[in-house]
Amino acid sequence: MSEPIKLFQYNTLGALMAGLYGGSLTIGELLEHGDLGIGTLDSIDGELIILDGKAYQAKGSSGKPEVVEVSNDVMVPYAAVVPHQAEVIFKQRFEMSGNELEKRIESYYDGVNLFRSIKIKGHFSKMHVRMIPKSTPDTKFADVATRQPEYTREDVSGTIVGIWTPQMFHGVSVAGYHLHFISDDHSFGGHVMDYVITEGMIEVGPVDQLDQRFPVQDRQYLFAKFNMDELKKDIEKSE
Amino acid sequence: MSEPIKLFQYNTLGALMAGLYGGSLTIGELLEHGDLGIGTLDSIDGELIILDGKAYQAKGSSGKPEVVEVSNDVMVPYAAVVPHQAEVIFKQRFEMSGNELEKRIESYYDGVNLFRSIKIKGHFSKMHVRMIPKSTPDTKFADVATRQPEYTREDVSGTIVGIWTPQMFHGVSVAGYHLHFISDDHSFGGHVMDYVITEGMIEVGPVDQLDQRFPVQDRQYLFAKFNMDELKKDIEKSE
Repeated sequence: MSEPIKLFQYNTLGALMAGLYGGSLTIGELLEHGDLGIGTLDSIDGELIILDGKAYQAKGSSGKPEVVEVSNDVMVPYAAVVPHQAEVIFKQRFEMSGNELEKRIESYYDGVNLFRSIKIKGHFSKMHVRMIPKSTPDTKFADVATRQPEYTREDVSGTIVGIWTPQMFHGVSVAGYHLHFISDDHSFGGHVMDYVITEGMIEVGPVDQLDQRFPVQDRQYLFAKFNMDELKKDIEKSE
Repeated sequence: MSEPIKLFQYNTLGALMAGLYGGSLTIGELLEHGDLGIGTLDSIDGELIILDGKAYQAKGSSGKPEVVEVSNDVMVPYAAVVPHQAEVIFKQRFEMSGNELEKRIESYYDGVNLFRSIKIKGHFSKMHVRMIPKSTPDTKFADVATRQPEYTREDVSGTIVGIWTPQMFHGVSVAGYHLHFISDDHSFGGHVMDYVITEGMIEVGPVDQLDQRFPVQDRQYLFAKFNMDELKKDIEKSE
């Protein structure tokens, strides 16, 4: 086997959902560990998209969708990145819903008990996204999640990036797909809700190890009380 | 902060409990990642105890408890080790049950959302252990768990080693304490059920990161079907 590929996860989705929205890792440090991934920004201010080693923020709170490039000193409370290497590449030649495409992607997996990196570059007849709005820790994630701006764009070219998580790690991450989108012209993006792909190239990357980091110097994290049953329900509702 | 301390976990307790008993990592490789820890041997043949960089196997299937040192070429299906460094050391000066001591240990934690390494060296008026018996994958872990040999020794000196896991990682590991014991004379040991400590020195070590490995070349692992709800119940019942 060549050099093992590590999924670098900073913090857990569970901790984020428990209200720990404050950033404690810089984008610069994050990008040292991978060139493809997802996450959110300090104060859960929108969706983080890591594509080809660059970081973008998708926001929707001003009444219209916006995407900006993020500088290295910005802080993140949660993110997952991987040095993406395609193991399987396939061409999607005809129109398919997101659900159908995800089933097709899974049919190429070599088993369902390892994480995967996902990259879908193509043209979409429909792309429906949402962006988490900047919030303070006194607002519960599940409540924030119910009032997220959502946008749909038709006929858009761009790239979906993200992580597929095996069932056993639900709570630490979200089981199944966690995907973010960014358009080729960088005018539109966010957390992927549903979509219809017209055509595209799909890359599925292997993950050999999980490098799980914690905000070890964040006293709020260290002493947070998590109700895991409630959290898992929230994750299912929100993600 | 000094060099971060990594908990190296090979495979998951969930996978083990799903019947993946075959070893796929050598003790030699395991010991490169830590000097204190727990696990089991190939074919779940007893309890693995890693103390001061040496590996021991505790078995009970011959009708009496046995402990042997394990050579570097033996394979393990599941193990967790850490380069243990005490962060808090305290002396236990009077008799206490295991439950009471564990509560005392937790009172020294700097928050409950990070893993910890645990080392309890002392004298025990009672030590109750069990040893998982060698089994084939067609026997369910929860069934194996109901017929494990158990032994109790009185007035024994030795060391408890293990890992404390935060709630969020239950399923990946077992939430709370996972402790194994070995007597000073290496004649007795196993998975700790309950105990009474007379006196001892307790060390609690920090864990900054989780280095989670998978048996990426084990096709049985890759394609295993896990029923997580059932697994979590099994873990609670068995551990």
